[in-house]
Amino acid sequence: MKIALTAKGWEIPAWIENLNKLLPEAEVRLSDNLGNLEEIEYALAWKGDTAFLNDLPNLKAIFSLGAGVEFLTQEPNLPDVPIVRVIGDDLTARMCEYVVLNVLMHHRHSLRSLKLQSRKDWTQIPDAAAEDFRVGVLGIGVLGLAAARKLQNLGYRVSGWSRSPKEIADLETYHGADGLDTMLGKTDILVSLLPHTPETEGILNLDLFKKLAKDGPLGGGVIINAGRGKLQVEDDIATAINQGILAGASLDVFEQEPLPSDSPLWELPNVIITPHIAAVSAPYATTKCIVEQIKRNEAGEPMVGIVDRGVGY
Amino acid sequence: MKIALTAKGWEIPAWIENLNKLLPEAEVRLSDNLGNLEEIEYALAWKGDTAFLNDLPNLKAIFSLGAGVEFLTQEPNLPDVPIVRVIGDDLTARMCEYVVLNVLMHHRHSLRSLKLQSRKDWTQIPDAAAEDFRVGVLGIGVLGLAAARKLQNLGYRVSGWSRSPKEIADLETYHGADGLDTMLGKTDILVSLLPHTPETEGILNLDLFKKLAKDGPLGGGVIINAGRGKLQVEDDIATAINQGILAGASLDVFEQEPLPSDSPLWELPNVIITPHIAAVSAPYATTKCIVEQIKRNEAGEPMVGIVDRGVGY
Ligand SMILES: NC(=O)c1ccc[n+]([C@@H]2O[C@H](COP(=O)([O-])OP(=O)(O)OC[C@H]3O[C@@H](n4cnc5c(N)ncnc54)[C@H](OP(=O)(O)O)[C@@H]3O)[C@@H](O)[C@H]2O)c1
Ligand SMILES: NC(=O)c1ccc[n+]([C@@H]2O[C@H](COP(=O)([O-])OP(=O)(O)OC[C@H]3O[C@@H](n4cnc5c(N)ncnc54)[C@H](OP(=O)(O)O)[C@@H]3O)[C@@H](O)[C@H]2O)c1
Repeated sequence: MKIALTAKGWEIPAWIENLNKLLPEAEVRLSDNLGNLEEIEYALAWKGDTAFLNDLPNLKAIFSLGAGVEFLTQEPNLPDVPIVRVIGDDLTARMCEYVVLNVLMHHRHSLRSLKLQSRKDWTQIPDAAAEDFRVGVLGIGVLGLAAARKLQNLGYRVSGWSRSPKEIADLETYHGADGLDTMLGKTDILVSLLPHTPETEGILNLDLFKKLAKDGPLGGGVIINAGRGKLQVEDDIATAINQGILAGASLDVFEQEPLPSDSPLWELPNVIITPHIAAVSAPYATTKCIVEQIKRNEAGEPMVGIVDRGVGY
Repeated sequence: MKIALTAKGWEIPAWIENLNKLLPEAEVRLSDNLGNLEEIEYALAWKGDTAFLNDLPNLKAIFSLGAGVEFLTQEPNLPDVPIVRVIGDDLTARMCEYVVLNVLMHHRHSLRSLKLQSRKDWTQIPDAAAEDFRVGVLGIGVLGLAAARKLQNLGYRVSGWSRSPKEIADLETYHGADGLDTMLGKTDILVSLLPHTPETEGILNLDLFKKLAKDGPLGGGVIINAGRGKLQVEDDIATAINQGILAGASLDVFEQEPLPSDSPLWELPNVIITPHIAAVSAPYATTKCIVEQIKRNEAGEPMVGIVDRGVGY
């Protein structure tokens, strides 16, 4: 079995090594040196140049090395084979860590507290309790639902928003445009774990920020975006923070990545910037998930994580 | 019913207001203006001057407004009535927030990450997964056990240490001096939620720090102390951080509070200092717990949270 691999900016040797270990019968070929194109049965890709995928006549499936697939679904001439995204405990656990950490940092005033420490100032900032916070999660798919559960476990009051209506035990859910406005009105901290699709692009804008609750413990909304940068309008975030419409933000993803050094986001007060590391695809754990799906496909079983190209995720 | 109250440095009116609301039949008297001492049946105290407790002939119980009681047990002439400490969901939840936040901040390199942000630097720091971390909890009483469960829920490998042997489902437990050394040797992050007693004083010292695992994801141990300041030897913490014996620390409590401005702890690298706010006793939630115990006692039922004076907690 021949497998094509591309992962611009990532550490290629680690991926090859894990594939060799977990699927020894496969030969891994880098996308810029594919040999006989007819031999390639599976492709593993992350961003970068994906045009080579169009030239593989016997391709059976394309795997995204991450949970996001917009770099594939937005490719016009992609062969008509399943696109499969990573669903794995390791990735999910890491995203939960990021979400819980960032919710807690805003709730417990970590940035102000660290500033007080730097001034050797013993001032005690009063904190509300977790149950005083209403957290709204945009996108309650694999990652959003898992994060919602961890937040509930700490006492937060959590609700979730999705495209399709849902009934989930012990979770208040909303869907569609009306459902969104209702949820925003009773949300203190908004966690975005949406995929980037034509429908979700720019959803995190000034109009939305203004709809967040103003009567919460922080006196204004906080947004946490670990979905995709294209979900957010960065000029609007700057405006909202500077005008006090937002009380804070955590941003892991950006319209342009790496975030340009002249972006005003870096220095906005009460904004936590991380370099797209909320949930990294660890080579071993991710390769294990992908190899499992390849084996299922070879055995004639359905793969888990197939993307619906129509809706874009 | 007459109740005596003292809480140095705390917001007294909030406590009186909540007592009046939740126990309207009681009259609250401040410790410096007690009127007829024979009338006082219950006393609520937090640090400050507790000598007045010795002069109350009809006292039925003394409530600590927090979980710590060393300011009472270390008082030599205290009347022989039950000392009751706060056990309440609100306090427990707040401590869990603090512990989870601080474990995550060290695990996910928050201080380094914020420093990179301040330099507009997109460098991605590689993170291990929660399951790569072994967290040892010193003291698996009310707070320690609750925190252990929240950490497990996020994927951390947790074990706990107590005075008496314990069998707790799905938790590796240790006790006594031998048990401690065994646990330390496989602990990457050590969370201290011990009470201050003659036995626990100074337990967080250089000798202990050296016993922590060195082969973990951070290449050295991290300590998080939210128990009491007297558990820690602050000179040893400074030495251990400066010599790389500890990779980091979070300290909420100190030998002397407020932490003096000339303490070297404020500026130690990778040390997070907070002003004894890990779990504050919220007036309403705490008063509710205390009133519940007073009502139990008046009804002839056993109170929950009675301290064993012999062991000191
Ligand atoms: N920052 C990072 O490190 C990182 C790492 C991994 C993933 N991510 C991002 O996280 C995203 C989510 O991953 P996942 O595995 O949770 O995806 P998923 O399981 O496909 O869940 C996506 C969720 O978004 C909802 N959604 C999609 N379009 C919507 C719309 N127009 N209106 C309302 N809801 C909509 C879906 O609704 P339905 O349930 O109705 O379908 C679903 O609940 C990924 O797409 C990726 O962009 C980021
Ligand atoms: N920083 C803050 O904001 C804050 C807020 C609240 C409380 N606290 C601190 O947290 C402490 C713990 O509260 P808690 O409600 O969890 O108390 P707890 O229920 O009494 O639990 C105390 C735990 O410590 C263990 N322990 C005591 N002495 C020991 C010794 N010599 N060796 C080994 N283990 C020992 C006990 O062991 P056994 O189970 O065998 O008895 C028990 O597991 C309080 O005493 C207070 O100092 C701090």
